[in-house]
Amino acid sequence: MKRTSQIPELREIIALERNRGRKIALIPTMGYLHQGHLTLVERAKQTGAFVVLSIFVNPLQFGPTEDYSSYPRDLERDVRLVEAAGVDALFHPTDHEMYPHPIVTYVEVGQLDTVLCGAKRPGHFRGVVTVVSKLFHIVQPDLSFFGQKDYQQYLIIQRMVSDLNLPIEVCSVPIVREEDGLAISSRNVFLTLEQRQEALILSKSLNEAEIHIRVGVKSAREIELNIRERISRESHGIIDYVEVRDAGDLSEVVNVESTVLIALAVRFGSTRLIDNKVVEVRTFV
Amino acid sequence: MKRTSQIPELREIIALERNRGRKIALIPTMGYLHQGHLTLVERAKQTGAFVVLSIFVNPLQFGPTEDYSSYPRDLERDVRLVEAAGVDALFHPTDHEMYPHPIVTYVEVGQLDTVLCGAKRPGHFRGVVTVVSKLFHIVQPDLSFFGQKDYQQYLIIQRMVSDLNLPIEVCSVPIVREEDGLAISSRNVFLTLEQRQEALILSKSLNEAEIHIRVGVKSAREIELNIRERISRESHGIIDYVEVRDAGDLSEVVNVESTVLIALAVRFGSTRLIDNKVVEVRTFV
Repeated sequence: MKRTSQIPELREIIALERNRGRKIALIPTMGYLHQGHLTLVERAKQTGAFVVLSIFVNPLQFGPTEDYSSYPRDLERDVRLVEAAGVDALFHPTDHEMYPHPIVTYVEVGQLDTVLCGAKRPGHFRGVVTVVSKLFHIVQPDLSFFGQKDYQQYLIIQRMVSDLNLPIEVCSVPIVREEDGLAISSRNVFLTLEQRQEALILSKSLNEAEIHIRVGVKSAREIELNIRERISRESHGIIDYVEVRDAGDLSEVVNVESTVLIALAVRFGSTRLIDNKVVEVRTFV
Repeated sequence: MKRTSQIPELREIIALERNRGRKIALIPTMGYLHQGHLTLVERAKQTGAFVVLSIFVNPLQFGPTEDYSSYPRDLERDVRLVEAAGVDALFHPTDHEMYPHPIVTYVEVGQLDTVLCGAKRPGHFRGVVTVVSKLFHIVQPDLSFFGQKDYQQYLIIQRMVSDLNLPIEVCSVPIVREEDGLAISSRNVFLTLEQRQEALILSKSLNEAEIHIRVGVKSAREIELNIRERISRESHGIIDYVEVRDAGDLSEVVNVESTVLIALAVRFGSTRLIDNKVVEVRTFV
């Protein structure tokens, strides 16, 4: 596995592979890798592409009161994991390599970024889209891979790529869960044993909501309310949001009549967890 | 010369040349080409690159009260000009090709875009930077060429490329002037004979300002005031702005002690003209 923190060196590594006729795949991450990331690697490798994985905890996407400084980091452990997973090149730039001078250029995806996590974390998606733009320009991949746990992020990146004519295929990979249903996240490491147990209510309530839809519940508000009530009743989690939205454009839904995203964000202590479920609904006319 | 309005066809044309080992140069224009544009072509050809020139009157960069619909257009004349000038590929997309659905993604360069033309034309540079991003992603040029008449635009594009790690060299080409000094512009066609004559005051007052600096005038306010007074005295032009600013970052200048940009925008009837001069000042310590 090649490994570099330097943009010019990474570009050379990639140019060599491209000249050999290989496609390039990029997996942007913030490190502290887990099975979710490794599933992205697996999917990327299946395409036969030269797989580049980046690790960069991007300061731009954290709010002033958020967990940038405490975000978990362990580069040497990550290196062993990606090497074993068959990543071809690891890019782990420093802050200075990514932002050598204060940045004044931002890429912003309107509409999609003002709801759900965007409403709760102002500037977050602007930071995400800007750093992903930079990584796209550095790597110039043919394919890129994102996890569906950050469903909104995936939709936003896809829209950015389409609006700005980037010649990149944006692929998404389903959420990877622990055996008991908890969506795998780098932030899970901060949960106490008790919080870890209580957090199971997230996936359980999403599963229950899907069942409600399957048996004919149409009202998005009713579905949201059921989830909220169950989380409040069965845990100490503080709800950031619980929302049923159109899975294609995140627009508001009154009655569930086409495929929806059920998304939630809940705080356990100082740890904010997100989870979601896409429920495919076919309309029979 | 190749000629297309379709993005996929343009990409094929370019991929072929790139695979032959040729560098690609892009000259983004709004058409109604003049000697200024043809000088960009000449400079691009000197690099040996495969020269792509785009013609697209970008609705995104015009304000609601601006001259989008009346902006001069003459594609067939432009085709003859670029063919004669030796352009390798002409890209003239429709609005629908560039914006197949309403765009929600914007690229914005802060700080640099709030002064001069940016202060007078809100949203203008956001529109410029966004469409240039799109063209950069479509063409993926190694080099791109911009005229110094739009000096602020050139600086902004350069900053965007640097901030977002686009692997593109941004080259600028000096202003081309008529024999009598008027900066060549597509909008000059709208001037009456009288306005055309009066507009000479722009380049004259810029030249005079340079002389003032050379003989030791330091005060930026004094230089601005001299230009304003001369324009008001000797023409019916309505001044939009006259400003002396740092040529590197457009920051405000009190005393001229390093290289400055003297920039102005003046309306003659409904036609808004811009002009500028970069005055190199060396500090001897």
